[in-house]
Amino acid sequence: MLSVVDQLAIIRTNVVDLLPEEDLVRKLERSVATGKPLTIKLGLDPSRPDIHIGHGVVLNKLRQFQDLGHKVVLIIGDFTAMIGDPTGKSKTRPALTLEETRENGKTYVDQASVILDRDKTEIRYNSEWLDALSFKEVIALSAKYTVAQLLERDDFTKRYRGGEPISVHEFLYPLSQAYDSVAIQSDIEIGGTDQKFNLLVGREIMRAYGHEPQCILTMPILEGTDGVEKMSKSLGNYIAVTDSPKDMFGKTMSIPDTLITRYLQYACYAPTDEVASLGLALSEGTAHPRNAKVDVAKRIVARYHGQDAADEAFAEFERVFVKKDEPDEIPDWTMTDPSGSMKLIDLLPVAAGLASKSEARRLITQGGVRVNGEQVKDPEATISAADQPVVRAGKLKWFRVIPQ
Amino acid sequence: MLSVVDQLAIIRTNVVDLLPEEDLVRKLERSVATGKPLTIKLGLDPSRPDIHIGHGVVLNKLRQFQDLGHKVVLIIGDFTAMIGDPTGKSKTRPALTLEETRENGKTYVDQASVILDRDKTEIRYNSEWLDALSFKEVIALSAKYTVAQLLERDDFTKRYRGGEPISVHEFLYPLSQAYDSVAIQSDIEIGGTDQKFNLLVGREIMRAYGHEPQCILTMPILEGTDGVEKMSKSLGNYIAVTDSPKDMFGKTMSIPDTLITRYLQYACYAPTDEVASLGLALSEGTAHPRNAKVDVAKRIVARYHGQDAADEAFAEFERVFVKKDEPDEIPDWTMTDPSGSMKLIDLLPVAAGLASKSEARRLITQGGVRVNGEQVKDPEATISAADQPVVRAGKLKWFRVIPQ
Repeated sequence: MLSVVDQLAIIRTNVVDLLPEEDLVRKLERSVATGKPLTIKLGLDPSRPDIHIGHGVVLNKLRQFQDLGHKVVLIIGDFTAMIGDPTGKSKTRPALTLEETRENGKTYVDQASVILDRDKTEIRYNSEWLDALSFKEVIALSAKYTVAQLLERDDFTKRYRGGEPISVHEFLYPLSQAYDSVAIQSDIEIGGTDQKFNLLVGREIMRAYGHEPQCILTMPILEGTDGVEKMSKSLGNYIAVTDSPKDMFGKTMSIPDTLITRYLQYACYAPTDEVASLGLALSEGTAHPRNAKVDVAKRIVARYHGQDAADEAFAEFERVFVKKDEPDEIPDWTMTDPSGSMKLIDLLPVAAGLASKSEARRLITQGGVRVNGEQVKDPEATISAADQPVVRAGKLKWFRVIPQ
Repeated sequence: MLSVVDQLAIIRTNVVDLLPEEDLVRKLERSVATGKPLTIKLGLDPSRPDIHIGHGVVLNKLRQFQDLGHKVVLIIGDFTAMIGDPTGKSKTRPALTLEETRENGKTYVDQASVILDRDKTEIRYNSEWLDALSFKEVIALSAKYTVAQLLERDDFTKRYRGGEPISVHEFLYPLSQAYDSVAIQSDIEIGGTDQKFNLLVGREIMRAYGHEPQCILTMPILEGTDGVEKMSKSLGNYIAVTDSPKDMFGKTMSIPDTLITRYLQYACYAPTDEVASLGLALSEGTAHPRNAKVDVAKRIVARYHGQDAADEAFAEFERVFVKKDEPDEIPDWTMTDPSGSMKLIDLLPVAAGLASKSEARRLITQGGVRVNGEQVKDPEATISAADQPVVRAGKLKWFRVIPQ
């Protein structure tokens, strides 16, 4: 096991909140002294099993804990998922059956295993202990937190002030989630910054039950490919970890330039100084955004599908990208040669107005010529008019070869 | 069964809220048509089994319902009483055992039977259904009411605005009480005006569970003998229905004059016109407050202990009352008669300075003379100096007879 100082340095990376750090130090010291791993908790909603690289921010942090020798416990929140929306107001939250929650949980873990070390990951379903709570125990639990404290949660504050109804049962959910920490006696609970409130409730409730309270650790929320909203499946701005290399690459290439360093940091987990220097280079114009994006996209694909897949995705993207550059109107060039075909090197001077065969050869061998979007580097390649191929010579010269 | 109109006239008496009256009319019509009695619910806290005449206001209303042929269900709130105060902050609310709640419930019913018809009174303990609620069912229940609605309850509003903590479990209590109505499917729930909010929650929750909602009926809160606070055991300003006739009489005599008509109306259940005319007479000075109070006190004692006990209590009070009038310093009068005794009629002219024996006789026979607090109407009564009796002649003349 690494020393406390070395562990802390890794744990701190990319973290937004780490509270209270002195408690974490104490826990780590004890762990190092006894060799007993810490228990790191992550709560999951089992109703949406599509893990995206936004989740990856947190999962990667968990993986760091695993690599440091600690134990990760994923809590699948099947208890509340099986209840659904008891007010019946939200159609987007249908109640799930036990089978569905198990299936979703399994899918989640399968997907998360791309990042997590499956052997150091424990899965628990919170119905295990929440289903067993009697009304009396629920009262005891809810006696440990106040209405005013819960109304301080941002979304509750807004809704209460805005006159939007908050059903009383919604107050029971953060308390249930907090009780999960009591049940598994977590040392640290991790989540996005939007979970900070709930994680702190867990800390308080553990204390109220006489347990050593968990530390809380929040990670940044990654913006979706639109660059505006939090990445989420429902907003359609997400890159799923199960997306094909091609989709993953293409979606990454679609992010606004402002997100490049964010993705480099939180989706590629690049070292801080690399992120900083790219940021500087981009702002000074010494780095080209598209190239930086290609690098980020390649690294994301490589992370989830391997380097070969990343290279292929890049090549594929290049083809598609080029195709997309195709102008709306491409002039026809009629091939009058009676054979109906010509060598590329002979075609270009006459069809694309290149000055000479040697200029054509240079352009072709340098990769500046594409036929139907495919780079063709062989000057002797045969172009058949019957295929009506679209030829691009250099950046701007396009024509379609048609037979006489 | 009486007609709906006749029943309504009785039910309306002394009521503060009767909501909604059109629903009650419908329920009564159905009851009259089918002969099926209505179910009237009263919720009780089993931790304080001393019933006082403040409770009597509500219990008397229940008795009226019973006399109209309806069924009264007393809900003993043993479920929450067995929990006590889970925050541990209130020492005045220790958790009760099952045995204690049963014992308290039994005591309550025994005491309430002074007013209620025991045969038309059903007793239910709400642990019967609340203990059986799973966490899921609690969530379903609490989904049916909002945080904002509960914060509108006066005491919650004040505490929330005043920054005083409200534990989340306190929100579950009115919902539990409301669920009692679902469990017994009450037609009407009755309570003091301070219960109006909770009774209305019951109405809403019944509706949310798809039941016909109960009507709610509130009765005035009787002030305690101090004339300021609500009558309550903990404030010590109460007249228990189990108080002795003497205490009951004395406590009633101690109420401020401003309460006389309130007690006549809500503790003696006097007809409205009698209450109104006494109020008028008192304000015009044509009725003496003390006499009116004596009447009220006699009627209260007679209600709980019978007429004879009321008369005795009055006589006893008169004696004590007179004794209490005794001045701090009573002058001695030395009897020089060698026999050591004198007739009362001979004593008064010399000892109390009355003008003549005939004046003494008139005062004695009119009841204006007391010896040791006891009225003595016999002019020939013998006063012995050895007894050192205290004699009061008229309102102001006091002396103690001592031997030479």
